[in-house]
Amino acid sequence: MKQEQLTALLKNIVKEEKRILTDKVDLYSYSFDASFGVHVPDIVIQPKSASEVSEIMKLANEHGVPVYPRGQGTGLSGGSLPVNGGIVLDLSKWDERLEVDSEDMVVVVSPGVLTAAINDAALEVGLIYPPDPSSSNVSTIGGNLAENSGGPRGLKYGVTKDYVIGLEVVTPEGEIIRTGGRTVKNVTGYDLTKLIVGSEGTLGVITEATLRLFPKPQATKTMMAVFDDIVYSGKAITKMLSSGILPSKLEIMDNGSIKAVEAYEPLGLPTDAEALLLIELDGHPQAIEDEIRSVEIVCKEAAARDVRVANTTEEATELWRARKLVSPAIVREKPTKISEDATVPRSKIPDMFGRLKEIREKYKVDLVVFGHAGDGNLHPNIIADKRDQEEMRRVEQAVEEIFKAAIELGGTLSGEHGIGTLKAPFMEMELGEVGLDMMKRIKDSWDPNNILNPGKIFPKAGQRLVLTNG
Amino acid sequence: MKQEQLTALLKNIVKEEKRILTDKVDLYSYSFDASFGVHVPDIVIQPKSASEVSEIMKLANEHGVPVYPRGQGTGLSGGSLPVNGGIVLDLSKWDERLEVDSEDMVVVVSPGVLTAAINDAALEVGLIYPPDPSSSNVSTIGGNLAENSGGPRGLKYGVTKDYVIGLEVVTPEGEIIRTGGRTVKNVTGYDLTKLIVGSEGTLGVITEATLRLFPKPQATKTMMAVFDDIVYSGKAITKMLSSGILPSKLEIMDNGSIKAVEAYEPLGLPTDAEALLLIELDGHPQAIEDEIRSVEIVCKEAAARDVRVANTTEEATELWRARKLVSPAIVREKPTKISEDATVPRSKIPDMFGRLKEIREKYKVDLVVFGHAGDGNLHPNIIADKRDQEEMRRVEQAVEEIFKAAIELGGTLSGEHGIGTLKAPFMEMELGEVGLDMMKRIKDSWDPNNILNPGKIFPKAGQRLVLTNG
Repeated sequence: MKQEQLTALLKNIVKEEKRILTDKVDLYSYSFDASFGVHVPDIVIQPKSASEVSEIMKLANEHGVPVYPRGQGTGLSGGSLPVNGGIVLDLSKWDERLEVDSEDMVVVVSPGVLTAAINDAALEVGLIYPPDPSSSNVSTIGGNLAENSGGPRGLKYGVTKDYVIGLEVVTPEGEIIRTGGRTVKNVTGYDLTKLIVGSEGTLGVITEATLRLFPKPQATKTMMAVFDDIVYSGKAITKMLSSGILPSKLEIMDNGSIKAVEAYEPLGLPTDAEALLLIELDGHPQAIEDEIRSVEIVCKEAAARDVRVANTTEEATELWRARKLVSPAIVREKPTKISEDATVPRSKIPDMFGRLKEIREKYKVDLVVFGHAGDGNLHPNIIADKRDQEEMRRVEQAVEEIFKAAIELGGTLSGEHGIGTLKAPFMEMELGEVGLDMMKRIKDSWDPNNILNPGKIFPKAGQRLVLTNG
Repeated sequence: MKQEQLTALLKNIVKEEKRILTDKVDLYSYSFDASFGVHVPDIVIQPKSASEVSEIMKLANEHGVPVYPRGQGTGLSGGSLPVNGGIVLDLSKWDERLEVDSEDMVVVVSPGVLTAAINDAALEVGLIYPPDPSSSNVSTIGGNLAENSGGPRGLKYGVTKDYVIGLEVVTPEGEIIRTGGRTVKNVTGYDLTKLIVGSEGTLGVITEATLRLFPKPQATKTMMAVFDDIVYSGKAITKMLSSGILPSKLEIMDNGSIKAVEAYEPLGLPTDAEALLLIELDGHPQAIEDEIRSVEIVCKEAAARDVRVANTTEEATELWRARKLVSPAIVREKPTKISEDATVPRSKIPDMFGRLKEIREKYKVDLVVFGHAGDGNLHPNIIADKRDQEEMRRVEQAVEEIFKAAIELGGTLSGEHGIGTLKAPFMEMELGEVGLDMMKRIKDSWDPNNILNPGKIFPKAGQRLVLTNG
């Protein structure tokens, strides 16, 4: 269908012209996300109601036009890329609803609300919205829901999905349904809520969500432990958790990350250390005091060179600044960052570090590792230059081997970034043919015309990872 | 297909004859569960491996024989009843695997393991498996998984689904798949794990599960608060939770429950009180001390007549004994108990109490209310005599009105018991036609011959609640 015809039809649905974008420049700014590849859509629509979305989906089904829902495009696996052209549904402008109910301890939100704004609104009444993806200041809750975003607090508090109790969703064929509700417990039929959250926009367009909130912890303390041997930092993690301490955050930075941050902004980090653990404890002040002592003992027993406790909020912020700077710091070295999130069972963290070291050497790639060590959700990041085709081919091979290592160690392709376009080629490796087929059956039964976010999650026959088309 | 033919074919799959039951007496003992109705199967098989289940499912598909998976038959909504005859898969004998891994903080279990045995095994290494349905000493984990069982600790710790990270499942067509794994975080494709848990045995036969374990809380304390006005007890609950206290249990007993228990076994409960709250706090000992004081203040402000703290483990056990005795106590008054689990948003608990009082009077039914007040998951129980057809017709109407009230107050048909046969007639009332259809599409795409647990969740055209055939 020609762009003009499509625009004309869409103007009957979305009456405000400024919410329909067709200029080349506008279209280009919706052609990429924080992952890889450029795909220009035919048209961008900014819907503001479930009925608009419903009519758009019905139109798209009638005319066989693909529809790509999108938040702020901060996704790292290509979930929002319009790989087949067609319509981009930009939901980031739809942020009208943000209603905290402190009695039911829930919040009802529109899809375009920024994730950090939800936590801010909750804090005003002494509650928190725990999921904290690194992008929370810029990413929308709609995108977080589609991708089931994680974050450092996932260790103790779980991920986005654990907080969603109700959704309003427009189905791929344009019907408006409600799943779940306002109650924490609900076993009425299949759990469509938890099926749709994390389905990467392939099973429905989320137009409203009801999220649980939690009481704000009374106190928080941050610690840092320095290790000369990264394998021992892994042992400290296991020991800490199995001794009954559940930190609210437990992050690791390897030597490459430490050095990159120090080069970017000198914070006084020990650049000769093989690993840093950053630990946040929260809860009752007396409980935290006890736990700090236990963590010190555990880390020292695991040969930590140094264990520091931040005594003030400023000191704590300073320590967390190191972790926050890893991403900006490493991209200063080379322009292209391939950020993975292969996840292994906690006990396999030391083994995974070993495998990553081998991969770094075998393919001569710049590989740094940081991430959510407490739950085995590491972030091996490869930094490269996408203009260097030879290097990118080595990166492709290294990435494939990272996935293989994770799966061989009993882990998974993705802990929090999703599959999107980048990991689709590896789905069968983890799930097997039948496992993948059972997912495909759901997609086919909900979206028989394959209109909603086609080209994601499910690989095309023979599809391989390609990073040389950047 | 004749029973003899079916038996002959099944003997090729399950070689041990004692695991194939065809005697009338045996079949009769599999014809009922803890809900309502009697349905005799043609044959009962006790499989002990995924490959046996796989072959049985393939055979059943070939010959169009319905298959009904079953644990210990403690379900309250009819999830395991063989309503169309055919094969009952008794998974309760398959309990070989119960492996706690304290490093990864997971346990891997066979479907027939008793739920309480999992927690016992975890306690040996200082961990807990939090979900605690009342039936946990007799129910299997397979049944808990199929129904997504709750329990008192659900308020703080969540329900069965929140602990399942991996499954081995035989699909309705007999393929063996693995979902999830051993990592807490996993966003590789659709979340089949959370779709299958709570699908009431209609989407697959769970043959193995990997469950998360948590550190055992350092200390636990129990309190009781007595109220002259049940509405004020509801206010105390809301106040308590929104002030930042998250009890591990927060249970309510109404006057009917209190009186029934005292008549059954005198425990010194205040029989003139309109409501009792039983509160369990867990965590760091100092945090608990602070919370006890806050709970006392909140309850007194909400006009509690009396607030008691159990000073010893024995006193605590005594208080919880009252709650445990409610079910046995009320069935002593009349033989038939219709146990519901309609759930409302926490803030609507006082309204729901009002509605239940109206229903009790309008239909002249013996209705007592107890349950998990902290999460709005009440258990309105009607006690009756199923031989009294006239009374049972009033019960049918009362039950229907309980569901209507819950949904009108923004709640749900079922918080933890499931839909099964008993609540299927009310599904469209909560989900609407399209919402129900989206669930049905999944069922049809996974089980095209409708072999696995047919007659559950999805209502037949015009199906109504009938309690007069019991």
